[in-house]
Amino acid sequence: MDSCVIPLRHGGLSLVQTTDFFYPLVDDPYMMGRIACANVLSDLYAMGITECDNMLMLLSVSQKMNEDEREKIMPLMIKGFRDAAEEGGTSVTGGQTVVNPWIIIGGVATVVCQPNEFIMPDSAVPGDVLVLTKPLGTQVAVNAHQWLDNPERWNKIRLVVTREDVELAYQEAMFSMAMLNRTAAGLMHTYNAHAATDVTGFGILGHAQNLAKQQRSQVSFVIHNLPIIAKMAAISKASGRFGLLQGTSAETSGGLLICLPREHAARFCAELRSPKYGEGHQAWIIGIVEKGNQTARIIDRPGIIEVAPRGTTVPLHPNNSTSSFESSS
Amino acid sequence: MDSCVIPLRHGGLSLVQTTDFFYPLVDDPYMMGRIACANVLSDLYAMGITECDNMLMLLSVSQKMNEDEREKIMPLMIKGFRDAAEEGGTSVTGGQTVVNPWIIIGGVATVVCQPNEFIMPDSAVPGDVLVLTKPLGTQVAVNAHQWLDNPERWNKIRLVVTREDVELAYQEAMFSMAMLNRTAAGLMHTYNAHAATDVTGFGILGHAQNLAKQQRSQVSFVIHNLPIIAKMAAISKASGRFGLLQGTSAETSGGLLICLPREHAARFCAELRSPKYGEGHQAWIIGIVEKGNQTARIIDRPGIIEVAPRGTTVPLHPNNSTSSFESSS
Repeated sequence: MDSCVIPLRHGGLSLVQTTDFFYPLVDDPYMMGRIACANVLSDLYAMGITECDNMLMLLSVSQKMNEDEREKIMPLMIKGFRDAAEEGGTSVTGGQTVVNPWIIIGGVATVVCQPNEFIMPDSAVPGDVLVLTKPLGTQVAVNAHQWLDNPERWNKIRLVVTREDVELAYQEAMFSMAMLNRTAAGLMHTYNAHAATDVTGFGILGHAQNLAKQQRSQVSFVIHNLPIIAKMAAISKASGRFGLLQGTSAETSGGLLICLPREHAARFCAELRSPKYGEGHQAWIIGIVEKGNQTARIIDRPGIIEVAPRGTTVPLHPNNSTSSFESSS
Repeated sequence: MDSCVIPLRHGGLSLVQTTDFFYPLVDDPYMMGRIACANVLSDLYAMGITECDNMLMLLSVSQKMNEDEREKIMPLMIKGFRDAAEEGGTSVTGGQTVVNPWIIIGGVATVVCQPNEFIMPDSAVPGDVLVLTKPLGTQVAVNAHQWLDNPERWNKIRLVVTREDVELAYQEAMFSMAMLNRTAAGLMHTYNAHAATDVTGFGILGHAQNLAKQQRSQVSFVIHNLPIIAKMAAISKASGRFGLLQGTSAETSGGLLICLPREHAARFCAELRSPKYGEGHQAWIIGIVEKGNQTARIIDRPGIIEVAPRGTTVPLHPNNSTSSFESSS
């Protein structure tokens, strides 16, 4: 499970908590703080929990930073973390900071819940539909962005993508990772979600497999569609790394993968995308739950949904090869 | 405060939690795990809390360790941490592990309490007595032990201490740091403690000052006696580092510094040391609470209580100079 659930000594309450920490992966310290916080909270959201009673922040300052860098960077990271916590309706009231060779940022999210506040991720049944609430490809976008300054790496992908494509994808990845899955967690209750997890280091397939294993019914998950930040599928193929189309590319602070009753899935997606929850929420039906033996797979030749970065207004078409012509001209 | 206290939405309950992580300071991975766990729990114990509902473990494996080292060292550290958690009546049901240049070990301790389960550290009054439940000098002992292999450093202290003294002090420090302050936390209720903190990175004086600032009455803390692992005061003086006698030497997983009503302090110490709680608990009256302005100080020439390592049976006398003769012979 994404969070641990501990029965308490007091009146049927449970303690639910989770921790996560990692190293910066984007250049913008403020956004990095937001991403770290969104990533920690996401483990609660995956259980349909929308409230968080407290957060702790875990930080390490790099010993390689000078005084000036520390004073500029760390407060921005902390502010990003705190702002995202506030957006999640919670606050940060503790933590620990150490000095380390590398910067570390992470946190702990804790909530005390009544039984109806969380959804145990074990009730998927054949006939359910799989929904994903953020596009895939964050790690590809982050790495491709680093390759802009690495000619050897860039040469391997320059035929399939422009520098502008990469910049846009990187921005999109950053915003996507910084978004809270909180609205989706709330709608899991409205639409009677049967199970969910969040997509992070093991990729969409790895997390789908983990989730399938936990189901009480005999089920397997079959993924038909992969919503991917535009052009990242092409980069994954051209670079021969990542395994994005195989579902094994790591994500950071990815979307919720939710098993929903078939009759509710479309409305769940429509409501999540509706303007009443603000800009930028997305959701796609990506697969189905069949009778099976607790496994998950992606079909051969899954549909690739190219998700246009929100910085662009012109829709991107799958198999659009304009950019390859441009970069090879 | 040592832990954060968050009022919950449910029936007068509070969420109390704390986190701490750091780098190994002793050679023995199992003991290091125990120390890390004792150090995290100590923040709860300082509030008189004896139960812990859940622990998370925070770990980083060093990228400089080879596979073999990882497989030997990390399981021992984890076992030490888990064993100490079990001794504390709790268990570890979550956490996060990353790869990092340095090994990190730490954790999160969380409990949901009723109001009578914790003692807010703000009720000291003039006439109270200050009690300390572990000897000082852990950092001096750990460093002196490293200096056994560093001739330049060792030469500065060899006139005041033997290698055997250092080995014994190091063993004592390791056992002391690995001990839980849980029994002391329980006795805080029995003997009506008014406030407490645990002694860690800021040294005894730093933590006494922090605690004094939080008091609601106009008080100041005056420390008369410093219980110190035998010979560590001499090392601190001879090396010109640490500031152990000034109260500024850092401790790891130190004792509780407790403000107790004067009439209860001696019985508190006697009961904590009594065999019914097992071997090794210690406690000393080290000072008094006066009327004042929320400050703390150590008197000029405080009494040094040389605390004999439990490995020795012969009592050590202050100003005993046998060892200097030995090492200069």
